Amino acid sequence: MFVILTYDVDVKRVNKIRKLLKKYLTWTQNSVFEGEISQGKLNQCLSEVENIIDKSYDSIYIYNVKSSKFISKDILGENKNFDELFL
Amino acid sequence: MFVILTYDVDVKRVNKIRKLLKKYLTWTQNSVFEGEISQGKLNQCLSEVENIIDKSYDSIYIYNVKSSKFISKDILGENKNFDELFL
Repeated sequence: MFVILTYDVDVKRVNKIRKLLKKYLTWTQNSVFEGEISQGKLNQCLSEVENIIDKSYDSIYIYNVKSSKFISKDILGENKNFDELFL
Repeated sequence: MFVILTYDVDVKRVNKIRKLLKKYLTWTQNSVFEGEISQGKLNQCLSEVENIIDKSYDSIYIYNVKSSKFISKDILGENKNFDELFL
Protein backbone atom coordinates (compact mmCIF):
# COMPACT_ATOMS: atom_id res chain seq x y z
CA MET A 1 0.00 0.00 0.00
CA PHE A 2 1.02 3.64 -0.51
CA VAL A 3 1.35 5.88 2.55
CA ILE A 4 1.73 9.62 3.04
CA LEU A 5 2.86 10.45 6.57
CA THR A 6 2.75 14.06 7.73
CA TYR A 7 3.94 15.27 11.11
CA ASP A 8 3.93 18.28 13.37
CA VAL A 9 6.13 17.47 16.37
CA ASP A 10 8.01 19.49 18.98
CA VAL A 11 11.41 20.67 17.74
CA LYS A 12 13.06 18.58 20.51
CA ARG A 13 11.78 15.39 18.84
CA VAL A 14 11.95 16.26 15.13
CA ASN A 15 15.38 14.78 14.39
CA LYS A 16 14.61 11.56 16.24
CA ILE A 17 11.31 11.17 14.33
CA ARG A 18 12.96 11.88 10.96
CA LYS A 19 15.77 9.42 11.65
CA LEU A 20 13.20 6.74 12.48
CA LEU A 21 10.89 7.46 9.53
CA LYS A 22 13.79 7.39 7.06
CA LYS A 23 14.15 3.66 7.85
CA TYR A 24 10.69 3.04 6.41
CA LEU A 25 9.67 5.84 4.00
CA THR A 26 11.11 8.56 1.75
CA TRP A 27 11.48 12.07 3.14
CA THR A 28 9.98 14.23 0.43
CA GLN A 29 9.16 17.54 2.06
CA ASN A 30 9.92 19.27 5.35
CA SER A 31 7.06 17.57 7.23
CA VAL A 32 6.19 14.79 4.79
CA PHE A 33 7.29 11.19 4.23
CA GLU A 34 5.80 8.93 1.62
CA GLY A 35 6.20 5.54 -0.03
CA GLU A 36 5.11 1.96 -0.55
CA ILE A 37 5.08 -0.06 2.68
CA SER A 38 3.53 -3.29 3.95
CA GLN A 39 0.98 -3.23 6.77
CA GLY A 40 3.43 -5.14 8.95
CA LYS A 41 6.26 -2.65 8.38
CA LEU A 42 3.87 0.27 8.93
CA ASN A 43 2.70 -1.21 12.24
CA GLN A 44 6.33 -1.68 13.29
CA CYS A 45 7.16 1.92 12.27
CA LEU A 46 4.19 3.40 14.13
CA SER A 47 4.88 1.49 17.33
CA GLU A 48 8.42 2.97 17.28
CA VAL A 49 6.93 6.42 16.58
CA GLU A 50 4.62 6.05 19.58
CA ASN A 51 7.66 5.48 21.81
CA ILE A 52 9.06 8.86 20.73
CA ILE A 53 6.17 11.30 20.49
CA ASP A 54 4.31 13.19 23.21
CA LYS A 55 0.76 12.24 22.32
CA SER A 56 -0.69 15.25 24.09
CA TYR A 57 1.27 17.65 21.85
CA ASP A 58 2.70 16.02 18.72
CA SER A 59 0.60 15.14 15.67
CA ILE A 60 1.19 12.36 13.12
CA TYR A 61 -1.21 11.76 10.22
CA ILE A 62 -0.99 8.56 8.21
CA TYR A 63 -2.87 8.70 4.90
CA ASN A 64 -3.18 5.17 3.58
CA VAL A 65 -4.05 4.36 -0.04
CA LYS A 66 -4.62 0.71 -0.97
CA SER A 67 -2.63 1.15 -4.19
CA SER A 68 -0.57 3.95 -5.69
CA LYS A 69 -2.73 3.66 -8.81
CA PHE A 70 -5.52 5.43 -6.86
CA ILE A 71 -3.42 8.51 -6.16
CA SER A 72 -1.55 11.04 -8.29
CA LYS A 73 0.89 13.71 -7.18
CA ASP A 74 1.43 17.14 -8.72
CA ILE A 75 4.22 19.48 -7.70
CA LEU A 76 4.34 23.28 -7.82
CA GLY A 77 7.80 24.74 -7.30
CA GLU A 78 10.58 22.64 -5.88
CA ASN A 79 10.60 18.83 -5.56
CA LYS A 80 12.38 18.76 -2.18
CA ASN A 81 13.19 15.05 -2.00
CA PHE A 82 15.61 15.24 0.94
CA ASP A 83 16.72 11.62 0.76
CA GLU A 84 18.59 12.31 -2.44
CA LEU A 85 20.52 15.03 -0.63
CA PHE A 86 22.00 12.49 1.76
CA LEU A 87 22.60 9.54 -0.59
CA MET B 1 -12.06 14.19 -5.58
CA PHE B 2 -10.11 14.17 -2.33
CA VAL B 3 -6.91 16.21 -2.10
CA ILE B 4 -4.06 16.41 0.40
CA LEU B 5 -1.96 19.51 -0.14
CA THR B 6 1.36 19.81 1.71
CA TYR B 7 3.64 22.84 1.53
CA ASP B 8 7.08 24.01 2.50
CA VAL B 9 7.29 27.72 1.71
CA ASP B 10 9.45 30.63 2.86
CA VAL B 11 8.27 32.14 6.16
CA LYS B 12 7.63 35.43 4.30
CA ARG B 13 4.89 33.75 2.23
CA VAL B 14 3.38 31.27 4.72
CA ASN B 15 0.50 33.42 5.99
CA LYS B 16 -0.49 34.48 2.48
CA ILE B 17 -0.50 30.83 1.31
CA ARG B 18 -2.52 29.67 4.33
CA LYS B 19 -5.07 32.46 3.91
CA LEU B 20 -5.54 31.45 0.27
CA LEU B 21 -5.70 27.70 0.89
CA LYS B 22 -8.29 28.13 3.64
CA LYS B 23 -10.71 29.37 0.94
CA TYR B 24 -10.57 25.94 -0.71
CA LEU B 25 -9.48 23.26 1.78
CA THR B 26 -9.34 22.46 5.50
CA TRP B 27 -6.17 23.28 7.42
CA THR B 28 -5.49 20.10 9.35
CA GLN B 29 -1.84 20.23 10.36
CA ASN B 30 0.93 22.82 10.35
CA SER B 31 1.90 22.20 6.71
CA VAL B 32 -1.13 20.22 5.52
CA PHE B 33 -4.49 21.07 3.96
CA GLU B 34 -7.00 18.47 2.87
CA GLY B 35 -10.55 18.04 1.60
CA GLU B 36 -13.00 17.31 -1.18
CA ILE B 37 -12.66 19.70 -4.11
CA SER B 38 -13.68 19.80 -7.79
CA GLN B 39 -11.04 19.86 -10.52
CA GLY B 40 -12.20 23.33 -11.52
CA LYS B 41 -11.85 24.72 -7.98
CA LEU B 42 -8.46 23.02 -7.58
CA ASN B 43 -7.22 24.58 -10.83
CA GLN B 44 -8.43 27.98 -9.64
CA CYS B 45 -6.73 27.49 -6.26
CA LEU B 46 -3.42 26.42 -7.80
CA SER B 47 -3.31 29.30 -10.26
CA GLU B 48 -3.68 31.67 -7.26
CA VAL B 49 -0.96 29.71 -5.41
CA GLU B 50 1.36 30.11 -8.41
CA ASN B 51 0.96 33.90 -8.17
CA ILE B 52 2.26 33.80 -4.58
CA ILE B 53 5.07 31.25 -4.42
CA ASP B 54 8.69 31.51 -5.49
CA LYS B 55 8.96 28.44 -7.69
CA SER B 56 12.71 28.25 -7.31
CA TYR B 57 12.43 27.89 -3.50
CA ASP B 58 8.92 26.98 -2.30
CA SER B 59 7.43 23.50 -2.59
CA ILE B 60 3.76 22.52 -2.91
CA TYR B 61 2.66 18.88 -3.26
CA ILE B 62 -0.86 18.04 -4.32
CA TYR B 63 -1.86 14.42 -3.69
CA ASN B 64 -5.03 13.71 -5.60
CA VAL B 65 -7.29 10.71 -4.87
CA LYS B 66 -10.23 10.10 -7.22
CA SER B 67 -12.50 9.32 -4.28
CA SER B 68 -12.14 9.49 -0.49
CA LYS B 69 -13.20 5.82 -0.41
CA PHE B 70 -9.71 4.92 -1.70
CA ILE B 71 -7.92 6.56 1.22
CA SER B 72 -8.01 6.19 4.99
CA LYS B 73 -6.43 8.41 7.63
CA ASP B 74 -4.99 7.36 10.99
CA ILE B 75 -3.86 9.81 13.63
CA LEU B 76 -1.21 9.38 16.32
CA GLY B 77 -1.26 12.07 18.98
CA GLU B 78 -3.11 15.32 18.42
CA ASN B 79 -5.70 15.99 15.70
CA LYS B 80 -4.60 19.57 15.03
CA ASN B 81 -7.55 20.71 12.88
CA PHE B 82 -6.76 24.44 12.91
CA ASP B 83 -9.93 25.51 11.18
CA GLU B 84 -11.95 24.67 14.25
CA LEU B 85 -9.74 27.01 16.23
CA PHE B 86 -10.85 29.97 14.16
CA LEU B 87 -14.56 29.16 13.64
